[in-house]
Amino acid sequence: MHNAKPLPSYLVQRYQGWKATTHAENSAWYRRLATEGQRPRAMVISCCDSRVHVTSIFGADQGEFFIHRNIANLVPPCEPDGNKHGTSAALEYAVTALKVSHLIVLGHSLCGGVQGCVDMCSGNAPELEEKTSFVGRWMDVLRPGYDRVKERNLAPEEEPRALEKEAILVSLSNLMTFPFVKSAVESGELTLHGLWTDIGEGDLEFYNAKTDDFEPV
Amino acid sequence: MHNAKPLPSYLVQRYQGWKATTHAENSAWYRRLATEGQRPRAMVISCCDSRVHVTSIFGADQGEFFIHRNIANLVPPCEPDGNKHGTSAALEYAVTALKVSHLIVLGHSLCGGVQGCVDMCSGNAPELEEKTSFVGRWMDVLRPGYDRVKERNLAPEEEPRALEKEAILVSLSNLMTFPFVKSAVESGELTLHGLWTDIGEGDLEFYNAKTDDFEPV
Amino acid sequence: MHNAKPLPSYLVQRYQGWKATTHAENSAWYRRLATEGQRPRAMVISCCDSRVHVTSIFGADQGEFFIHRNIANLVPPCEPDGNKHGTSAALEYAVTALKVSHLIVLGHSLCGGVQGCVDMCSGNAPELEEKTSFVGRWMDVLRPGYDRVKERNLAPEEEPRALEKEAILVSLSNLMTFPFVKSAVESGELTLHGLWTDIGEGDLEFYNAKTDDFEPV
Amino acid sequence: MHNAKPLPSYLVQRYQGWKATTHAENSAWYRRLATEGQRPRAMVISCCDSRVHVTSIFGADQGEFFIHRNIANLVPPCEPDGNKHGTSAALEYAVTALKVSHLIVLGHSLCGGVQGCVDMCSGNAPELEEKTSFVGRWMDVLRPGYDRVKERNLAPEEEPRALEKEAILVSLSNLMTFPFVKSAVESGELTLHGLWTDIGEGDLEFYNAKTDDFEPV
Repeated sequence: MHNAKPLPSYLVQRYQGWKATTHAENSAWYRRLATEGQRPRAMVISCCDSRVHVTSIFGADQGEFFIHRNIANLVPPCEPDGNKHGTSAALEYAVTALKVSHLIVLGHSLCGGVQGCVDMCSGNAPELEEKTSFVGRWMDVLRPGYDRVKERNLAPEEEPRALEKEAILVSLSNLMTFPFVKSAVESGELTLHGLWTDIGEGDLEFYNAKTDDFEPV
Repeated sequence: MHNAKPLPSYLVQRYQGWKATTHAENSAWYRRLATEGQRPRAMVISCCDSRVHVTSIFGADQGEFFIHRNIANLVPPCEPDGNKHGTSAALEYAVTALKVSHLIVLGHSLCGGVQGCVDMCSGNAPELEEKTSFVGRWMDVLRPGYDRVKERNLAPEEEPRALEKEAILVSLSNLMTFPFVKSAVESGELTLHGLWTDIGEGDLEFYNAKTDDFEPV
Repeated sequence: MHNAKPLPSYLVQRYQGWKATTHAENSAWYRRLATEGQRPRAMVISCCDSRVHVTSIFGADQGEFFIHRNIANLVPPCEPDGNKHGTSAALEYAVTALKVSHLIVLGHSLCGGVQGCVDMCSGNAPELEEKTSFVGRWMDVLRPGYDRVKERNLAPEEEPRALEKEAILVSLSNLMTFPFVKSAVESGELTLHGLWTDIGEGDLEFYNAKTDDFEPV
Repeated sequence: MHNAKPLPSYLVQRYQGWKATTHAENSAWYRRLATEGQRPRAMVISCCDSRVHVTSIFGADQGEFFIHRNIANLVPPCEPDGNKHGTSAALEYAVTALKVSHLIVLGHSLCGGVQGCVDMCSGNAPELEEKTSFVGRWMDVLRPGYDRVKERNLAPEEEPRALEKEAILVSLSNLMTFPFVKSAVESGELTLHGLWTDIGEGDLEFYNAKTDDFEPV
């Protein structure tokens, strides 16, 4: 026996509405996805933030994107140490089993995780430095990015946004530390993409490797 | 300079369509979400599988659900050892910072991660037993669940579905090993929910603690 | 041409779900309500507050309650001066045209309008005293109630809740200033009821005329 | 001592059912709504008619919509004359204090208030012309709409439905006479929406500003 409650009834009602409409209209495709298995074109790594819906932004339906969501859309470096690495497992499955063609890292404005990293690295959130802070230890992935942002001597209020974009670059770099990613990129089977979206304005920027900067798509 | 390409143009086109329509119609709300911050009612832990869209099933818009997605919607046990734990970090942020009211674990049929666990535990996938297999080490979280399924002496073809549901129970149990989850559940600030959906048929079942079984919602 | 936008698509989706399920299952009744007209048993006067759903609390379906909602569930005194009185119009229609059998005033905890009245009457919100403040002028209805609460010399933090309940009594008194309400009550065709609900705890209290106090139902 | 009776026992029974089920399942969220306050995304102005449930149509739960209900879902013009204006007070609170992102005017078929307006304006209900008729004076808000419908030379039986839709447009126009609505619309913080629903058939139409007409959603 586990500690669990029934689904709140407003969600039951909404589900039944979905079943009778969206599912009914698409059941042929959903059944085929069940029978033949998924074949997503891309993997997206985005934030858990409730304000970021990659499927909405890209008008995507079931079957298009394999989506991993974690705090601050981070990819840690490859560490095959036998421990549990959820992000690395998702990556490995997407690239080696599903053979996705694109790997998209999608960052966003006003990211609470990135703000926490700024606070922690600037000494304003000692509780995040503790060993027992899961958020703090996860944001350690972004420490090298914070150091690079710091070198730019920005006004303090500009640091979070700069670090949101740096987080995408840290993830793009770390992606290349995974042998299966590196070889798929080098053989042309996989391309990497860095995106950043502004939650309020709905703007979307991509990382342009030629100019080494983010630009509107 | 990082290894990255511009966004494929079909996605640029779809994004621009979204910006001109959905974003334009909802920009007042999206700006308010940016200004005031998110206040999601629930956290959902679901699979990366491209065929599972919790926001679609529940007719949810930006701001409603804080969503973590990993392989097989697993929650590992609480291990405050100073290492990087992406799922635990997402949980900690949702429960302690965002103070979500519901924690929903959403499993699904035909889960590739669960199938991998069956293969690994039944000796049919020795490569997943290797220390360097990220998927294998991640699926270790589900080993105790596999042992329980095995005790039921099911026909082999019934094992994956049974383990998909067991994975939800393993996650519900592991959730209670996090002190901040346990105390929020005990004080009535948080309720846990286990759901399983059939990708092809669109059915939705919930874990009923009274009968200790899954039932249609 | 008017300043208006299409409905946000998440609401369109939810509506279509309702149409395909709830409406489909109840269409016989809804069509009869359309053909024969409504015949509600009760009128409810409740607050606009998004946290108060009288139909949810009482498991009510279409056709049961004629519901007027305004700030702080107030009924102003009868003033047949030829000006526009939305609450009085709703009352008149419910009692004389629909001949409802019950008139229920439903107040609630943490009412923003009542809090505004406390602030205004205690001199802490001069902006609400201005002629142009619609909220302030509307809350004038509750001034006599504030004076009575003040006489009880409560601790300041107890005043809002006391005034929430007093607002229900003010409305019950003002109801009897409408000749059509008075005569329907006196002839036994109509009964009045005062209720107060606690948003967080879900408690419900009713005004007991015998003890002149609120008690749990 | 006020003229009031206890709650009819069938409603007590239903309330206790709600408390033991819906409230119990959602108490974490309801408590959070109590502690943190409401943050509704939209204000809805709909009719008191017992056959219109906006929360049902849109699968909405507590906290989503701030709802004002009056006869015929009318918004009178802005008149800051120091008198009591319940609708204007609700509007002011929603837009300036709660900062809702959408303002939805929801009309419906077979509206008794609109029918009364047709009767009054066509000379068939002299009692509604009297100064003491609250319904008549309230429906004065819709007289300009009646004049426009009359110019279309419709068959008499088509006038009520045409006026139901015209009532929505009158309200949309009057909304823009409130300075706080106008400025929020112009700055992009607020969007207006006009909807009309058929009670029997469950159809839903929206006002399309581009075609200046109502269309199915």
